[in-house]
Amino acid sequence: MNANTWSLDTMLSPQSIAMIGASDNLSTSAGKCYANLKRDFPGRLYPVNPRRPTVQGDRAYEDVESLPESVDLLIVMVQASLVPAVVERAVAAGHRSALVLSSGFSEAGAAGAALQEQLTGLAFEHDLPILGPNCIGFMSSVQHVMANFSLLPTAERPRAGSVAIISQSGGFGSFILARAVSGGLGIGYFVSTGNEATITVADLLGYMVEQPEIRVITLFSEAIRDPERFLAAADRALELDKVIISVTPSITDAVARAVMSHTATMVGSREAYDAVCRQRGILRANSIAEMVDFAAILQGGKRLRGRRIGVITPSGGAGVLMSGAADDCGLEVPELPAGRQEEIGKLIPAFGSAKNPVDTTAGFAVGFPELYEGVMQGMLDEEIIDGIVPLCWYGDSPEAEVLVRLQAASSKPIAPVITHDGQTLVHRMPVYGDPTSAVRAMAAVAEVSERPALRRRHTGTDPDQVAAARALLAPAIDHRFVLESTAKDVLALYGVPTAAEHVARDADEAVEAAAKLGGAVVLKVLSYDLPHKSDAGGVVLDVRGAAAVRAAYEQLCQAMARKSVPMEGILVQQMAQVSLELAVGMYRDPTFGPMVSAGLGGRLIELTADAVLVPAPLDLEDAGPAVARIAGGRISHATRGLNPSGMRAAAEVMVAVGRLAVDLPEVESVDINPLLPTETGLVAVDALFTLTSAPSAR
Amino acid sequence: MNANTWSLDTMLSPQSIAMIGASDNLSTSAGKCYANLKRDFPGRLYPVNPRRPTVQGDRAYEDVESLPESVDLLIVMVQASLVPAVVERAVAAGHRSALVLSSGFSEAGAAGAALQEQLTGLAFEHDLPILGPNCIGFMSSVQHVMANFSLLPTAERPRAGSVAIISQSGGFGSFILARAVSGGLGIGYFVSTGNEATITVADLLGYMVEQPEIRVITLFSEAIRDPERFLAAADRALELDKVIISVTPSITDAVARAVMSHTATMVGSREAYDAVCRQRGILRANSIAEMVDFAAILQGGKRLRGRRIGVITPSGGAGVLMSGAADDCGLEVPELPAGRQEEIGKLIPAFGSAKNPVDTTAGFAVGFPELYEGVMQGMLDEEIIDGIVPLCWYGDSPEAEVLVRLQAASSKPIAPVITHDGQTLVHRMPVYGDPTSAVRAMAAVAEVSERPALRRRHTGTDPDQVAAARALLAPAIDHRFVLESTAKDVLALYGVPTAAEHVARDADEAVEAAAKLGGAVVLKVLSYDLPHKSDAGGVVLDVRGAAAVRAAYEQLCQAMARKSVPMEGILVQQMAQVSLELAVGMYRDPTFGPMVSAGLGGRLIELTADAVLVPAPLDLEDAGPAVARIAGGRISHATRGLNPSGMRAAAEVMVAVGRLAVDLPEVESVDINPLLPTETGLVAVDALFTLTSAPSAR
Repeated sequence: MNANTWSLDTMLSPQSIAMIGASDNLSTSAGKCYANLKRDFPGRLYPVNPRRPTVQGDRAYEDVESLPESVDLLIVMVQASLVPAVVERAVAAGHRSALVLSSGFSEAGAAGAALQEQLTGLAFEHDLPILGPNCIGFMSSVQHVMANFSLLPTAERPRAGSVAIISQSGGFGSFILARAVSGGLGIGYFVSTGNEATITVADLLGYMVEQPEIRVITLFSEAIRDPERFLAAADRALELDKVIISVTPSITDAVARAVMSHTATMVGSREAYDAVCRQRGILRANSIAEMVDFAAILQGGKRLRGRRIGVITPSGGAGVLMSGAADDCGLEVPELPAGRQEEIGKLIPAFGSAKNPVDTTAGFAVGFPELYEGVMQGMLDEEIIDGIVPLCWYGDSPEAEVLVRLQAASSKPIAPVITHDGQTLVHRMPVYGDPTSAVRAMAAVAEVSERPALRRRHTGTDPDQVAAARALLAPAIDHRFVLESTAKDVLALYGVPTAAEHVARDADEAVEAAAKLGGAVVLKVLSYDLPHKSDAGGVVLDVRGAAAVRAAYEQLCQAMARKSVPMEGILVQQMAQVSLELAVGMYRDPTFGPMVSAGLGGRLIELTADAVLVPAPLDLEDAGPAVARIAGGRISHATRGLNPSGMRAAAEVMVAVGRLAVDLPEVESVDINPLLPTETGLVAVDALFTLTSAPSAR
Repeated sequence: MNANTWSLDTMLSPQSIAMIGASDNLSTSAGKCYANLKRDFPGRLYPVNPRRPTVQGDRAYEDVESLPESVDLLIVMVQASLVPAVVERAVAAGHRSALVLSSGFSEAGAAGAALQEQLTGLAFEHDLPILGPNCIGFMSSVQHVMANFSLLPTAERPRAGSVAIISQSGGFGSFILARAVSGGLGIGYFVSTGNEATITVADLLGYMVEQPEIRVITLFSEAIRDPERFLAAADRALELDKVIISVTPSITDAVARAVMSHTATMVGSREAYDAVCRQRGILRANSIAEMVDFAAILQGGKRLRGRRIGVITPSGGAGVLMSGAADDCGLEVPELPAGRQEEIGKLIPAFGSAKNPVDTTAGFAVGFPELYEGVMQGMLDEEIIDGIVPLCWYGDSPEAEVLVRLQAASSKPIAPVITHDGQTLVHRMPVYGDPTSAVRAMAAVAEVSERPALRRRHTGTDPDQVAAARALLAPAIDHRFVLESTAKDVLALYGVPTAAEHVARDADEAVEAAAKLGGAVVLKVLSYDLPHKSDAGGVVLDVRGAAAVRAAYEQLCQAMARKSVPMEGILVQQMAQVSLELAVGMYRDPTFGPMVSAGLGGRLIELTADAVLVPAPLDLEDAGPAVARIAGGRISHATRGLNPSGMRAAAEVMVAVGRLAVDLPEVESVDINPLLPTETGLVAVDALFTLTSAPSAR
């Protein structure tokens, strides 16, 4: 049985609720929570309190057994040590879900952790959804359930709307909710998961995505505990064109990364999470403030057709600032066509500007809001404009009313900046107090609008190919590192072109191999103990002629003998003409599994540290755009970059390495470096695999 | 006469003020401005209005001639066309400075521009400081001058304090002021410069830096018109340990960059401005909101001794978020020493954490603020903690009062996050509504605290050396590009080590040169018409032996003859062993002059695009830290990076190129690429100069 199979509907959309520990004292959390329930819930509500005949005017019940019905939701707020017994009795009495608000569980040392384990056990044993413990509850505007003490019963109920807020942290969740309300978000649901004895943020993500009222889900969580359910929810969000905004903080260095590949040392867990979000269409916010800013405009559900925005301000200075901010986040502020400039120019004073940013000048349209509406409407009608960021001085002005009306009427997103008294408008349209924040929110809409449709990434595993790869890897299986020649054989099997080369067991074979290859060659030691050959004197470059090949062969043998490095042979390769050096790699993130990287390669890879990252499995639709981001996006147009066929070949290598990673979990990491563009295409010139099954890693 | 010589004191600290156009109508700008003056100014104040006997209860005067005295400040708010005549009469009547609030000048077409030119002419002719026109005036809390219509006369006067706000834009300036007030800044001065007929933002920067009451100056300006005065003010700020915070927006692509060097194509004007700010200790903010956040904590004048911060929260989730944010902006959250953990651990519940971030747990210290004070004081006393970011739920709580008291008492900066009702505290201490913003503000304090002391950067120009350099450049002076051999001779003169090489005029000389150099050599065409030799088939690499040298020589001659490229000779160089390739360059920014860059070099420089930038003149104290930032700071510790002597040598090359740039303005750009680490130190292997004096650039 899996937590996934629980229907959270019973808990979050209950018809009947009972609260154990309900109190008359409104200064306590229990009193606040019951008062919140009472003021909003239209269903049947029962307080359980053995010491009182009534609670807040409602008839109180002695215990879970004496309630007049089995309830959908039982809220528990009694001393931690009593909770498991209460839950057990609740199950016996047929109650169908439990929200445990009490604290004193895994956050409170070993005794608390034991209590929590009891709770988890009960939940799984009886198939009972339990939210918490140590959380502050939840709120559903849809079902009018205010099962929390986060809001004061005297405070206004948050405006209902299309945003679901999920926070693992309880106290901090209250802060997020408060910010969301003051930022003008319409709240459909708010849920804190606390210690997650059973139900996790990923479970809730999966639930919220399916709710028809919900368009935007914000997520704050210290960690993603169940990546598979998390990814499944993200996929559904993409499928339904809903938006998940994550402020999951940077995962710190304390997360030990045991991977030894060069790639892995360059990319941290934060990068892996970013790569997952990018691939799955999850929007990342850098702060709670930014999360609220993004949700404010996205809750309306509008999308951008492109990245071209119109800026309308009564101040040239603001226009310059906003154009600069637009440029910084990849939005364009295109000059308006002549005809449109003429149209808008007729409305504004001659010393304004109708180019875009449109500068209406400071006193414009005072007393004549129809002029302001004309300018806005002209911009909205303009074909080359996808969205508008207008700046308006006052929230209680006729101009602001024009903005409210037009944003409701137009399909183009509008992110208004109101510099003074914007709070008066915040529940009627998205409002930004800072020009830069408004522009960034518009860029977030652009990012969401550009998400590709959901697709399944087929790994296309061929059992024969996997078996063949395992046969190739068999001799290496007791080692940490795979021989270069073996690694390349496996890569070749997966369709990655590799350099022409031969393994020589003696000098004669080396001479013969060099003759077959022709031209200058490279000799490299093959040894399980020499993963980084160049640094260890295990490579001789640019060898020409039989005598030189023989000499190089002997030189390498002697060098290895001196170091007592056991050799499996010498690899003889054609000397490559180097122009651009790339690298493609793979490592395994502890949470999200195999990550495929690509970037500038060569001996300076630690310095260039240029890696784009895509989680595997991946397909060409993932890899193509990733390759295009190599070298800060300059790869496709710099003088010494890649041509279109090279770009495609690099993407194919990424996909191949991703397939390999999915097929062969025993390969812990892959480093192809360099991957060189040649006349016949990209070629893997060097490759290193590490194995998880190596004795040192076991 | 220079605007610099004007004393802005007369205007900004007047003893007497008259306002032409003062009005009884408080709904007009003129009425608002006079009411603002009247409610605050302790000196002598006169309205000038020929149509009324009194204005706002004060006796009105007919004209500037009939005023009872020559005033320090004359405020002008009449129709634009009348302003020049009024100013002329004011000068004749002995009035000493003018603030022109009227609009209708250069922002309003050709006629307005002509009026503004008249104003500028009058100012310079009569040595009369004029602020404006088309501005919204200024405010001085120090002198109680509210010479503006930005604030409503009925609104509370902003709290006086140590922040000066300078905005070129008037309307947007009002927004900045409003944000500053709501963000809790104490405002010493607010000035908008408008059209800057005479007085610029740089003049005001220079003035504000000298005011003893002012610690922080915020600057919003579309452009820096007088870089020299701007830099002089920045230097004084550094000398006096005051802080300039700039939100000057990105300078757009429209600024044509005529420079042809590779370096210049990689670095835009924004990067140049960032480099200037970094060198001169100016803090950059990315938005108005961030500017206010930074000023809020910096206005107190505290500095950080290091980058180690303590985080104290009632929520583990918030602690994780803030630690992640700290890491993102280069702050550390070190684990507290065992003794301190024990001390703090005794105060907080057992299921909290005393490690850092300190998690006091949610209900901590309710009713016992002395416990909270104990935790805070323990953190403040801790040697390894330089500043604190505490998170507190409510602004109207005893805990918040503890924070107010401790931040006043301690020399360590505190950036409190108040998640609810922080506005109640905003004038008593810095307060942040968002955890990430608080951490970023602390990072800004760290940046300011790390500024080096002001120093003069002597260029140490030796006239003989300049003359020698000019003699070397003489043959190239009619060309756009300088021959590689000449460029290297000039570099060598400035102390940059260059590769061993000889210029050969025929094949025999080439053979002789190759023999002298020994080993493999490179042959390169020297031609004024072939700046990028490799791409044009003008280089033969790895040539060994006399016959090969002769063949290569002939090959190059024939290739150039086919292309009709005139040759000045062939450069014969030792073939370099390449490991790490660096590049050092110079280009001239249109505003800030010569910029010296350094970064990863080689043929892939367009792809790596790794350039640190320092304005010239620069010294080793500038160049050393700049070199340390190459390759994202990995240059000094990556496997194939630079050792300490290489780091120093690279810094010396930057300084030398900076001296060259200052000495030789005819050199428009310099590209040394590659600059190679060799056994004997760094060596310039290729170098290209472009000249501004070239016919094509004239």
